[in-house]
Amino acid sequence: MAKADERGITPQSEDFSAWYNELVLRAELADRGPVRGTMVIRPYGYRIWELVQSALDQKIKETGHENAYFPLFIPESHLKREAEHIEGFSPELAIVTHAGGRDLDEPIVVRPTSETVIGEMFSKWISSYRDLPLLINQWANVVRWELRPRLFLRTTEFLWQEGHTAHADETDAIAELDIATRFYEEISRDFAALPVVIGDKTASERFAGAQRTVSLETLVRDGRAIQSSTTHYLGTNFSRAFDITYTSQEGAVEYCHTTSWGMSTRMIGTIIMTHGDDRGLILPPRLAPHQVVIVPIGRDADLDRVLGESRELEAQLRDAGVRARVDDRDQLSPGFKFNYWELRGVPIRIEIGPRDLAAGVATVVDRLTGEKETIALRGLAQSMPERLEHFQQALYRRAASFRDDHTSVVDSKEELLAAVMTGAALALHCGDPLCEASIKESSGASARCIPRDGADETGSCAFCGAPSAYGRRVLFARAY
Amino acid sequence: MAKADERGITPQSEDFSAWYNELVLRAELADRGPVRGTMVIRPYGYRIWELVQSALDQKIKETGHENAYFPLFIPESHLKREAEHIEGFSPELAIVTHAGGRDLDEPIVVRPTSETVIGEMFSKWISSYRDLPLLINQWANVVRWELRPRLFLRTTEFLWQEGHTAHADETDAIAELDIATRFYEEISRDFAALPVVIGDKTASERFAGAQRTVSLETLVRDGRAIQSSTTHYLGTNFSRAFDITYTSQEGAVEYCHTTSWGMSTRMIGTIIMTHGDDRGLILPPRLAPHQVVIVPIGRDADLDRVLGESRELEAQLRDAGVRARVDDRDQLSPGFKFNYWELRGVPIRIEIGPRDLAAGVATVVDRLTGEKETIALRGLAQSMPERLEHFQQALYRRAASFRDDHTSVVDSKEELLAAVMTGAALALHCGDPLCEASIKESSGASARCIPRDGADETGSCAFCGAPSAYGRRVLFARAY
Repeated sequence: MAKADERGITPQSEDFSAWYNELVLRAELADRGPVRGTMVIRPYGYRIWELVQSALDQKIKETGHENAYFPLFIPESHLKREAEHIEGFSPELAIVTHAGGRDLDEPIVVRPTSETVIGEMFSKWISSYRDLPLLINQWANVVRWELRPRLFLRTTEFLWQEGHTAHADETDAIAELDIATRFYEEISRDFAALPVVIGDKTASERFAGAQRTVSLETLVRDGRAIQSSTTHYLGTNFSRAFDITYTSQEGAVEYCHTTSWGMSTRMIGTIIMTHGDDRGLILPPRLAPHQVVIVPIGRDADLDRVLGESRELEAQLRDAGVRARVDDRDQLSPGFKFNYWELRGVPIRIEIGPRDLAAGVATVVDRLTGEKETIALRGLAQSMPERLEHFQQALYRRAASFRDDHTSVVDSKEELLAAVMTGAALALHCGDPLCEASIKESSGASARCIPRDGADETGSCAFCGAPSAYGRRVLFARAY
Repeated sequence: MAKADERGITPQSEDFSAWYNELVLRAELADRGPVRGTMVIRPYGYRIWELVQSALDQKIKETGHENAYFPLFIPESHLKREAEHIEGFSPELAIVTHAGGRDLDEPIVVRPTSETVIGEMFSKWISSYRDLPLLINQWANVVRWELRPRLFLRTTEFLWQEGHTAHADETDAIAELDIATRFYEEISRDFAALPVVIGDKTASERFAGAQRTVSLETLVRDGRAIQSSTTHYLGTNFSRAFDITYTSQEGAVEYCHTTSWGMSTRMIGTIIMTHGDDRGLILPPRLAPHQVVIVPIGRDADLDRVLGESRELEAQLRDAGVRARVDDRDQLSPGFKFNYWELRGVPIRIEIGPRDLAAGVATVVDRLTGEKETIALRGLAQSMPERLEHFQQALYRRAASFRDDHTSVVDSKEELLAAVMTGAALALHCGDPLCEASIKESSGASARCIPRDGADETGSCAFCGAPSAYGRRVLFARAY
């Protein structure tokens, strides 16, 4: 382990993909599982996920949703009931054909998402308008067979939450879509320090079976976009397929309008690619397993005194609500430890040596700016929450500047194709799926979303010149 | 929904199995999934599981274990590396043979437990004695094909945590076994109000691949035992199969000694069967989603005043740390609500009517004893935590008395066979697996464990008369 950390990692500018893969493994966030495309989430990576979960679960519960758990296994026939849904997911399914020592009569699908099994239960549970809205969330694993896996971003199995709700009418369902979109916006902005672009997907990029899909897109440091979460308005598509009906106050039998929405471990990949640099990860303090690491420096009796003071500081930091840790491993040099924690993206490092101790100070190093400050030990712990909050804001601002600097407003085919080589392009588009396909073929870029905060605008499609659709610009980018 | 709750449920004495199945469905704890043997855990049941998780996760973390996540999918060849392990699990496996639109070259097993995939990773992660002990826990779903499924107790898929640890030697591994056993004892006793009998399994009842299995057994109200959690010392069996080695301080390459331990959603079935009565569930307050339910009684303007006071009391209870809820559903009668919450096992019900309000009192009803008390509203919220604690203790004592009353010390075949018809038997046993099999064949009872707190005793096997083994009595019972 010691040797691995003394090497650097491939610089982002040289090979972004290699940078990412090395970093995920070297920072001990994840490892590859024995079945191709599967992932082991190691404790350091899993702790980040637990912090995401805890923040998101609180928002989900505060707004009246309840957690439940639905089966991993779905009869193949159920998945086929919604035609677009099965068509969309069919190529990615893993199928159990043998169980309990014999071949099964009907193949079983390992859930790629749970609309169908939840639809089946909603149909049983809902009978009257009094049962609505039904607001359910599940934390679970899902399986989608990946031909080109990448740790966190595309794995054959991933962890996520999936919200599933049923409503009396479209208005109520769309209000729910807004609530769920707001959860994700808040988690992205306030916890992950991710500036997101939010908007509807075009028809060809929608979830299989949805009438509307709203996605949250982040631009990462190689200029590609990542869809880190999505919310779907399913209309009555699944209600019709699974007979989810209710008797209204007036006694009529009506179909429910349903929604679904999910955020996954992909979020961790998005954080890495948005904030990391050539020295490794940079974690937003709110999601950092260790917000502050204290590295004691010295030998023999000096070290004992420094260690004592470090532990005292650690206790003070914890009292102040800071996730702090002393790195007291005795076989490793301070220099090794600096690199080790920089690679792992710990926001603040505190170095304490014998001379610092004599002067009543410590050296405080900021992972984002690299700046070192000498600060009095007295009061250091108490001021740390503010320092971390400042770090969190600065990280967000840096990512927002990057996004703005790498998003071009384009009005011609040439500008569009050039812009998506290094970032995102905002273009008027005709709305024709064939034109979208041509853009993808020429450049690899897809329509990420129709940003909801875009100004009203009409004109000609930047790519084909036909009259524009949507009344606003569309965000195009190459994507993970 | 209203109608279903007005019916009673089958009494325990008439048909315990029917009582259980009806209760699980009617109390909306769980539902059957579309694939045979799978389970939907509904919000009320899932909330109990979340409370178990939260208590157990805290203990796991406080003792230095870290959470991680390992893949659902395991190559079939990996599972075969530990011979006893594959032999034990083979009949219960679900197997994926087709994925991503094509037949797989090697079949994939859906994890029945994770020793093998975790063993593979431990082998990569551990190299030096400095990497030990490695203390990992995972919260996950596992699949074991069940021919005779029963909600919560035996389901094809269930949720659990599985701890997996690696140690330098047997002493350290056994110390870990004790730590994990203590978690489970504390969760059982202090949260689930379950008096458990703890002891080693006999060789024929051990986990497939373990050298020692310690189980926690609970006697439920039809006189059967449930193994609600287990801890395993795996010796070097998995280390040899997966090459989990370390270099010692002296430079020698040694095999690690590993352990594993798990508690599952079976715990919820155990709670239902231990504490429930003919009116429904009785939940231990520490795991009750609602500890107190307030039912307002009255009409029109009276009801408005009562509702206002009920909400005020609810707020006071929440301030006192109590999970309280006003049942303000306007279409249901108070009588219906009483039955509804009794069925769902809420420990304390508070009824408030206009006359109570005028007198500044409320009626407090204890779900365990059925006793009603008139208590002043002033101070009621503040005294509730103590009342709930008292309830928790009383529930534990009742279950402990039941266990003691239904556990017989037996010294002959006849006594043994008679005792296990209505409860558990403590018998000296020869230790011969064939004799254990005969007991099972004659009575359905198995050796549950060798209680660790049993007195030293030797003599003749109660069943076959051969000299006794183990130096203590063995607990026999029919089991779920």
